[in-house]
Amino acid sequence: MKLLEERIRTEGKILPGDILKIDGFLNHRIDTALLQEIAAEFHRLYADSNITKILTVEASGIAIAVSTAFLFDNVPVVFAKKGHASNLGDNVYHAPVYSYTRGAQMEAHIDSNYLDAGDNVLIVDDFMANGQAALALIDICHQAGAGVAGCGIVVEKAYQDGGKRIRQMGIRVESLARVKSMSVENGIEFERD
Amino acid sequence: MKLLEERIRTEGKILPGDILKIDGFLNHRIDTALLQEIAAEFHRLYADSNITKILTVEASGIAIAVSTAFLFDNVPVVFAKKGHASNLGDNVYHAPVYSYTRGAQMEAHIDSNYLDAGDNVLIVDDFMANGQAALALIDICHQAGAGVAGCGIVVEKAYQDGGKRIRQMGIRVESLARVKSMSVENGIEFERD
Repeated sequence: MKLLEERIRTEGKILPGDILKIDGFLNHRIDTALLQEIAAEFHRLYADSNITKILTVEASGIAIAVSTAFLFDNVPVVFAKKGHASNLGDNVYHAPVYSYTRGAQMEAHIDSNYLDAGDNVLIVDDFMANGQAALALIDICHQAGAGVAGCGIVVEKAYQDGGKRIRQMGIRVESLARVKSMSVENGIEFERD
Repeated sequence: MKLLEERIRTEGKILPGDILKIDGFLNHRIDTALLQEIAAEFHRLYADSNITKILTVEASGIAIAVSTAFLFDNVPVVFAKKGHASNLGDNVYHAPVYSYTRGAQMEAHIDSNYLDAGDNVLIVDDFMANGQAALALIDICHQAGAGVAGCGIVVEKAYQDGGKRIRQMGIRVESLARVKSMSVENGIEFERD
């Protein structure tokens, strides 16, 4: 998605530790016009996939999930919460996910009432690097017996192995911007299809 | 908002500790059709207020903020993050807010680049009880010199003093469902205008 790549190139900040900050339009301040373009692209890609539910993980994924759901005839959104394993109640599906924000191992969890075997799920998220969050959501879908139609990712760090691992599972991954390489010194380069 | 009150009455769960869970349609699973109705109501209430930006606090507020922003000609959304005071960088506006989820005093914070004196802000959130989150966002707006057009709250616990305190500051508060009283024994009662 050319428009998105341009925004990342001009406004994204590359920080030491392999961090790409796009706080100016997606992760803190949200450019809602761009968000609609992102949602429209996910809809275009998955329009024929009979999506019944959109899954994401709190917090940044929520904006993307809701905007996309509006274009899929208002299917429900479910966002996994992150909590410590010790605090989980009964009747939740859960899978481990490392929270970089909190610097701790957390459990992504979804109330078992909100996901079931009849669902055909689109997983969306802002970033994919090693794929932790998406893998946790896929694991949770499998626990529920739900189908996974695919993943819609805004920015994939294609030089990390998350996307590859998930595609090797036979699950479709569509990323709107695929970062081939990035560094503080040399800036950012995108993959071309 | 009659539709919302009905959903709360039929699907909300009142738990010990003054907790109203509406996880089935707003805080975990999101009914996106209802979310659009909520956004439309906020738009109707604040359509003439020259809103330039919508503010909320992560995580549940994000869905409401984004949906509402779409109806205000795609004004930007900024969601305050919650962090520990010791981890805040420079150039952030911040104000204390107690996180019930994490059981800890946190700082709601917003990058100072994303809020300025020219802004006329609509603050939205899912719940208002003692008003902690909204008061923190109002404080942050004042720090930035931004105007506060008002607050749009989905569910106000009107028997707590948050709404009263904010209205006494001369700030408009519009709540779509106002809980007059609730208890595990007697259920929920709404205020009537």
